[in-house]
Amino acid sequence: MRVRNKPWAEPLIAAHPEMIITDPIQIKGKWQKRFKKVQPLHIEIGMGKGQFITKMAAKYPEVNFIGIEIQRSVAAIALKKALTDKLPNLQLMLADGGDLNEYFNDGEVDQIYLNFSDPWPKKRHIKRRLTYKTFLQGYQYILKSHGVIELKTDNQGLFEYSLVSMNNFGLQFDAVFLDLHHSKEADQNVETEYEHKFSEKGQRIFKLTAHF
Amino acid sequence: MRVRNKPWAEPLIAAHPEMIITDPIQIKGKWQKRFKKVQPLHIEIGMGKGQFITKMAAKYPEVNFIGIEIQRSVAAIALKKALTDKLPNLQLMLADGGDLNEYFNDGEVDQIYLNFSDPWPKKRHIKRRLTYKTFLQGYQYILKSHGVIELKTDNQGLFEYSLVSMNNFGLQFDAVFLDLHHSKEADQNVETEYEHKFSEKGQRIFKLTAHF
Repeated sequence: MRVRNKPWAEPLIAAHPEMIITDPIQIKGKWQKRFKKVQPLHIEIGMGKGQFITKMAAKYPEVNFIGIEIQRSVAAIALKKALTDKLPNLQLMLADGGDLNEYFNDGEVDQIYLNFSDPWPKKRHIKRRLTYKTFLQGYQYILKSHGVIELKTDNQGLFEYSLVSMNNFGLQFDAVFLDLHHSKEADQNVETEYEHKFSEKGQRIFKLTAHF
Repeated sequence: MRVRNKPWAEPLIAAHPEMIITDPIQIKGKWQKRFKKVQPLHIEIGMGKGQFITKMAAKYPEVNFIGIEIQRSVAAIALKKALTDKLPNLQLMLADGGDLNEYFNDGEVDQIYLNFSDPWPKKRHIKRRLTYKTFLQGYQYILKSHGVIELKTDNQGLFEYSLVSMNNFGLQFDAVFLDLHHSKEADQNVETEYEHKFSEKGQRIFKLTAHF
């Protein structure tokens, strides 16, 4: 997701170290201390403007959530939401989702959300897709054994690729939805901003839940 | 697939033991003798009226094909096609696809096609779906190691189920197509009668290729 550069982003981020972490390496292995309670830890890689992760944190107070985003101007929009909601089980992180094993200890995370990741449709960019095997290795490291990945996308090519890549890596599939918004899970689904926009246009949303 | 009872079906089947096998247990382990050449053996479970298997046999003379169908009136229609085409690499079988290990030896088959199988949408009929684990065990037995399954369906529920069931069984996915007729494989695709009818109406066709 690209947004225009926001001059207020940097000062806002700098003013709220209690809410958004800009040096996550320092907190490796100690994430639970950032929350009010020790609870299962779920992270979203590429939270965008943060609608999904803030709604999830409100809906599931018994889970601690971290939203990760690499783009400062986007993360700052999520930060605004988080500051309004003041949820004790939500933290944000300004970081590259590709370096997860520098930020989390082995087995520190219970669940990972990959929502509407960049599809990188060109074959020569295959290694950048967030379900490429090197990323899966990273997820496996930071997740507890049998840790869960939830993937949502409207991109058919990325979903086809991810089904094969995650199967080949040895992940166990729990559920596949080829039209999430017209499935029995539609009611419980928490939408991202992007998802809301595209599903309103009649775009089909795909979802895979799998565990190691 | 249901068709009206055809009074000519039974005499036609009885008159062509060289083309359609009605007592497959007798031929277990000796299937290659039914063909002109010893070649890889591919079978279709539920061939219906036989369009797919006869076209495949014409297109791939370097492969031996067996089309299996349980309904006599349907198999008789396929038999008519096969008798017209006179292909040395095609045999038909009147049998229940659920008893494959009675008809084939361990490792006697190279590839299995499951085309537009009955979706059995009700949960209490899950064990009848051709990708339920007991069927997969049967396929694993008759297939060579790393033997391939190709599944095509227009039924979203069956495809979602099959992705999970085949993954959980330990099958390795080779390729997933969520809209086969608009994919790079569309040109090579050999259609079944059913597939042709439904894809013409704009119905999406799903395909999974996987191996043990």
